[in-house]
Amino acid sequence: MNEQQPFRPKARLPRGLRDRDEAELAAETRMLDVIARVYASYGFRALETPALEYTDALGKFLPDSDRPNEGVFSFKDDDGQWLSLRYDLTAPLARYVAENFQNLPKPFRRYQVGRVWRNEKPGPGRFREFTQFDADTVGSASPAADAELLMMFADTLEALGLSRGQYIVKLNSRKLLDGVLEAAGVAVSDRARRGIVLRAVDKLDRLGVAGVRALLGAGRKDESGDFTKGAELSQDQIARVLAFVAPDNADASPEAVLGLLANTVSGSTTGETGIAELREIIRILNIAGYGPDRVRVDSGIVRGLDYYTGAVFEAQLTFPVANEDGETVVFGSVGGGGRYDDLIARFTGQSVPASGFSIGVSRLLSVLRARAGAEVWETQPLIVVLVLDKAAVAESFLLAKDLRAAGLRAEAYVGEAGMKAQLKYADRRGAAIAVIEGGDERARGEVTLKDLALGAELAKSTDNRAAWVKDQPAQQAAKRDQIVPAIRAMLNAKAR
Amino acid sequence: MNEQQPFRPKARLPRGLRDRDEAELAAETRMLDVIARVYASYGFRALETPALEYTDALGKFLPDSDRPNEGVFSFKDDDGQWLSLRYDLTAPLARYVAENFQNLPKPFRRYQVGRVWRNEKPGPGRFREFTQFDADTVGSASPAADAELLMMFADTLEALGLSRGQYIVKLNSRKLLDGVLEAAGVAVSDRARRGIVLRAVDKLDRLGVAGVRALLGAGRKDESGDFTKGAELSQDQIARVLAFVAPDNADASPEAVLGLLANTVSGSTTGETGIAELREIIRILNIAGYGPDRVRVDSGIVRGLDYYTGAVFEAQLTFPVANEDGETVVFGSVGGGGRYDDLIARFTGQSVPASGFSIGVSRLLSVLRARAGAEVWETQPLIVVLVLDKAAVAESFLLAKDLRAAGLRAEAYVGEAGMKAQLKYADRRGAAIAVIEGGDERARGEVTLKDLALGAELAKSTDNRAAWVKDQPAQQAAKRDQIVPAIRAMLNAKAR
Repeated sequence: MNEQQPFRPKARLPRGLRDRDEAELAAETRMLDVIARVYASYGFRALETPALEYTDALGKFLPDSDRPNEGVFSFKDDDGQWLSLRYDLTAPLARYVAENFQNLPKPFRRYQVGRVWRNEKPGPGRFREFTQFDADTVGSASPAADAELLMMFADTLEALGLSRGQYIVKLNSRKLLDGVLEAAGVAVSDRARRGIVLRAVDKLDRLGVAGVRALLGAGRKDESGDFTKGAELSQDQIARVLAFVAPDNADASPEAVLGLLANTVSGSTTGETGIAELREIIRILNIAGYGPDRVRVDSGIVRGLDYYTGAVFEAQLTFPVANEDGETVVFGSVGGGGRYDDLIARFTGQSVPASGFSIGVSRLLSVLRARAGAEVWETQPLIVVLVLDKAAVAESFLLAKDLRAAGLRAEAYVGEAGMKAQLKYADRRGAAIAVIEGGDERARGEVTLKDLALGAELAKSTDNRAAWVKDQPAQQAAKRDQIVPAIRAMLNAKAR
Repeated sequence: MNEQQPFRPKARLPRGLRDRDEAELAAETRMLDVIARVYASYGFRALETPALEYTDALGKFLPDSDRPNEGVFSFKDDDGQWLSLRYDLTAPLARYVAENFQNLPKPFRRYQVGRVWRNEKPGPGRFREFTQFDADTVGSASPAADAELLMMFADTLEALGLSRGQYIVKLNSRKLLDGVLEAAGVAVSDRARRGIVLRAVDKLDRLGVAGVRALLGAGRKDESGDFTKGAELSQDQIARVLAFVAPDNADASPEAVLGLLANTVSGSTTGETGIAELREIIRILNIAGYGPDRVRVDSGIVRGLDYYTGAVFEAQLTFPVANEDGETVVFGSVGGGGRYDDLIARFTGQSVPASGFSIGVSRLLSVLRARAGAEVWETQPLIVVLVLDKAAVAESFLLAKDLRAAGLRAEAYVGEAGMKAQLKYADRRGAAIAVIEGGDERARGEVTLKDLALGAELAKSTDNRAAWVKDQPAQQAAKRDQIVPAIRAMLNAKAR
């Protein structure tokens, strides 16, 4: 250490980042494993790309592009080139496919799980680092590819424990919205205006019809007074768009919905192509057994990202969810995706059809953990072997080793505190059982097993070990060589 | 698309980063799962910290601190504060413990796996993004805590398939090197000089005794002509250090080695404390059954990171390993760690004893995959259902769905190519079996199963399906409702 007063940084995390504990990680690991098994069972193969990419390779497709850094974390490499942390897993996939196109089997179907980073304003449940789990099919323009993704999306949600009816995958096509605009006389080439329309419609859930109407027109001032410029459509154009995205057709059959939507895009080639593609997707899904109880056309779904070109889809939960404050809320999207036929052409100039979807892992996980039956997501019970005699710590290690060899989760205490603090430690660790092997017990070839949940109350007021051992109903002696069956019996009794 | 010529970024990765394929990821997932199970079985609990931290919270402990960016990727946040990508998992742990100290059970034992980033010059097998898997015990100064980590390190390597004798965990203490320097008259407070000595000794494997001797003296010019300034020790001091780090004691017992080392630090309190701690660690390990065939004292191990204060350890493989060019090489370290009692005090001013180790996942994985018996690390065989009749793609989906329901990995082809290209696709995917269900077969309630490995040669020269079906010995008909047992029989026959 230096003589001078050293600099002491404050121990804290930057905004919008968080640490995650064992219970959440155990549940997430289980969840990721389930998703990976479903994707792999469909023949999708795993891929991992690095967290860092050249900034120009990622492109600028985030909906929130108002901020100086364009929503991504970027910095200059030693050679002066800009690098960014990926903001999703789709842009890196496009780079990967463009780079390796000749060597990939086509269609190329891959899944990828990983952290992504958004340099955006954090908020409740909105972090700057989070996990996505994506599946994509590259090299097929066939509606069958979209249908397969939708089947797999539904299968994944059910494999994660959601029942039929607890979720719905909503399906739409960007071509329909393009068709509505084309039919209403907004030029296809006016991409800026289309972008504003897109982002306005994407906020339907949050802002309602009135808010979207303002954003389609002159613009909208929010609660904080910030003004967002609108798309400046005419009243007639606004009416057409709203009739499309917020129609009154909730109870109609998929075929009837498609019929109504076909009317709104009538006369637009783009729109009619979109209708035909959706019809084919629905036809395949129906035969494969994925009916409107799982996948349903909904023209209100547009997805925020700029790069979609055809079918878009989004999975939503249909049951009420309690938020952190215990309020019941409509949970909204747990994932979505769509077709992005131009993303690889950014690199190669050659159009490569592609489609995929992404599951928002943390978001969905919070719901799954809150539901009944979540106890199966918990970790294995912990056994703590107390060390009463420091000179005999190695013997305690041997005991813990025997327990582990029998498949139990066990540790010998490695700190330097006394009996009382060790019991407190075991409690704070949430341990199920403490194993106590004092000199007397060892001489008799015995150990004491203490059920910590039962004994926690009394243990708090214990000042010395002898009194404590005598008074506790929640403990029992076991022969050292019978410790494994004795512990199993205790754990089984607790589980009942 | 814009009218003007669009910008086309080149599809490529920045230096020192790489994409990883299915086979490697499947093996890594398996490996991480094994490690996590061992750590969890010891009662260590999982923790995840974010990839980004405040730069000042991470500190500067990397051995390669010559570069302007200090070896880390850093950038300014919106509020002007500097953020960095973590370069290891230990510095974030210190931040976490300092931030949550009051609420943690002590000792706090956690494991964490994650990507780390080094803004260093990449080279063969040396990447700028890689995976580490750490276990640490915070809040215990007891040698028992170090002993437990060493036991767990050995158990982990064996759980990963290394046999006793194929690895050795080497143990040393920074206090011994400090003791040698103290005994040789180098001031304890001269941290800069001690740092140069440390980094010199750490290069013993690579530079040999002569190279280290130069670095302990005036300095060393490497092959490229770059000059590294030395520690400028006297000849006597150099001799003492070399006698310590490269002694002639390979065959001595642990106790004899400790005796010899005790002589070299005699008269230094720091050194004598280090010897006593190592003796206690070895004593515990011997009783717990972890003898010198697994853990051995080796004074040549110092570890490069700046923050170690006591015991340091490193696991090495003892068998020859073939590198990418097929040459047999000494593989060196697959992980290591040690005691770092001052790292948390950086934040709090209060010393908190801590010890831990890190497994270099990618490095160890490359060895494990190259070994015999690695086929168990492979993925499940893939079944591809060909789609001969585009109108019947939904029926092909149904067939694939049935196979998945039986636990197989199956996909229906979702591209738009013909029969020949579909077979080529199945081959490139490494599929085991192709399922062919043409109109004729469907009418008879049959499918054709093709063993792709057997049939690959002939299929290449096939121009039309009829000829191909007739000539192939590697295929067979199966009843549609008997397809699962037929495929299982084929897979079993292939496995034999």
